[in-house]
Amino acid sequence: MKLYIANKNYSSWSLRPWILMREKGIAFEEIITPFSDDSANSPFKTFSPTGKVPCLDDNGTLIWDSLAICEYLAEIEPTCWPADRVVRAWARSAAAEMHSSFQTLRTQCQMNCGVRVILNKIDDTLRADVERLSALWCEGLQRFGGPFLAGRTYTIVDAFFAPVVFRIQSYGLSLAAPAQAYVNHILALPAMRQWYDEAMREPWRKDIYEKSVASYGLITADERIKS
Amino acid sequence: MKLYIANKNYSSWSLRPWILMREKGIAFEEIITPFSDDSANSPFKTFSPTGKVPCLDDNGTLIWDSLAICEYLAEIEPTCWPADRVVRAWARSAAAEMHSSFQTLRTQCQMNCGVRVILNKIDDTLRADVERLSALWCEGLQRFGGPFLAGRTYTIVDAFFAPVVFRIQSYGLSLAAPAQAYVNHILALPAMRQWYDEAMREPWRKDIYEKSVASYGLITADERIKS
Ligand SMILES: N[C@@H](CCC(=O)N[C@@H](CS)C(=O)NCC(=O)O)C(=O)O
Ligand SMILES: N[C@@H](CCC(=O)N[C@@H](CS)C(=O)NCC(=O)O)C(=O)O
Repeated sequence: MKLYIANKNYSSWSLRPWILMREKGIAFEEIITPFSDDSANSPFKTFSPTGKVPCLDDNGTLIWDSLAICEYLAEIEPTCWPADRVVRAWARSAAAEMHSSFQTLRTQCQMNCGVRVILNKIDDTLRADVERLSALWCEGLQRFGGPFLAGRTYTIVDAFFAPVVFRIQSYGLSLAAPAQAYVNHILALPAMRQWYDEAMREPWRKDIYEKSVASYGLITADERIKS
Repeated sequence: MKLYIANKNYSSWSLRPWILMREKGIAFEEIITPFSDDSANSPFKTFSPTGKVPCLDDNGTLIWDSLAICEYLAEIEPTCWPADRVVRAWARSAAAEMHSSFQTLRTQCQMNCGVRVILNKIDDTLRADVERLSALWCEGLQRFGGPFLAGRTYTIVDAFFAPVVFRIQSYGLSLAAPAQAYVNHILALPAMRQWYDEAMREPWRKDIYEKSVASYGLITADERIKS
C-alpha cells in the first residue's frame, strides 16, 4: 500500500491514517508531496481524484479521504475500532464529528507542529469548540477508562484527534485535567514523536499557512530547522 | 430506534439516515423538532450532544452524526454498503467526500426542497463543485453499472447524495447526462417522494434559510403550502 501525504508540519488530514497505520503496524510506503503555491495545477491532482491528501493506493484501488481510508484499514485490522459495538458507536460518532466540525478550531489554530503561539484572543466560537473538545474527550476517557479515548486500545478516534493534540501543544489551549493528561500521553507515543521529528526537519514552508498563524497570534518559538 | 431530525424541507443531514432506513426497511420512530431561531438555546441540545441533527437513539445508545449513524446501521443491515470491498472502498470515499467537502454547493445552494431558483451567477468555485459532483457520479454509474452510484443496490453513498439530488432540482444545476438520469431515478423513489411531500406540508419557515436562498438567486416557484 502507498500512502500519499503532504508536509508533516502542516497536513493534519495526512497525519490521521499515517499514525493509525504506524500504531497498528500496518506496512505502507509513504509518498510525500509538499504543498505547492500553484493551486490551479496542484501536484496532488496527479494521484488524488479530489486533488487532496491523504490518498491511499492499495494495488490500484484508490481511497481518497481520511475517514474512508481508516474504515478501509479497519476491515483489514479490526482493532482499528473498539471491539464493543456501543463503544464503537461512540468512537465513530466522535471521529465523524471531527471530520465535519470544529471549524473555528481548524481555521484559527491550524496545525503547524513546530510553532508555539500565544493567541491574540479566544473568541466565543473558538471557546465553544475547545469546550466541546474537552467535554468529548473527558466523556470517552471516563466512560471507557482510558488511556485512549475509547479505552485501552488505540483506535481510529485517537487517530482522528491526533492533529488536535499538536494544536493544543502549539496554541497552549487549556483543557480539563483528564483531557490534558490525554494530550501528554499521546504526544509521548513513539509514532507521534517520529512524525513530529520528521516535521521539524522538513525544509519547506508554505507562505499562506505561516501568515495565517501570524494573523491569529504571536509566535513565541519555532522548533523547525531553518528553511 | 428513535431518529431525531429537523424540518424535512431544510435539513439535509437529517435526510441521509432517514432515507437509508426507509430504503432498507429498518423500522424507526421519527421525532421531528423544527429549527429554532434561538441558537443559544437550541432545542436540539435536549437530545443531541452536539446540538445538531440527525441523532439516533438506539435504546439509550446515542449516535450523533449522519455518517456514524449510517455505519452503525450497516452493522445491522450489511446491504447498506456494497458487498464487494473495492466497490465499498469507492462508496466510502465518495460518502466521506460529501461529508466534509462541496462547501460552496452547500452554502450557495442550500437544501430547500420546495423552491425552484434561478441562480444569479455560477462562480468558479460553485462550477468546480458541480463539475466534481457530475464526474464522481458518472464514474460510479459507469464503473459499477447503475442504476445506483455503486451498482444495483441502494447504499449509503446514495443516501449521502440524496440532499444534493433535491438541490439539483431546486437550482436547475446542469450535469452530464448519466448524472442527470441518476437524479431523475432518485427523485422517483417512493421514499424520496414521501420525504418531499411531507416537506411540502410543513408549516414552519426559517428566516435565515429563506433569506439565504433569496440572496443567491430568484425564486421562480414554491411548492410548499402557505405558512
Ligand atoms: N476530507 C478530506 C480533507 C483532506 C484535505 O483537505 N487535505 C488538505 C491537506 S491537509 C489538502 O490536500 N488540500 C489541498 C491543497 O491545499 O492543495 C479528508 O478527510 O481526507
Ligand atoms: N456533521 C453533522 C452535521 C449535522 C448538521 O450540521 N446538522 C444541522 C441541520 S441539517 C444542524 O443541526 N444545525 C444546528 C442548528 O441549526 O441549530 C452530520 O453529518 O450529522
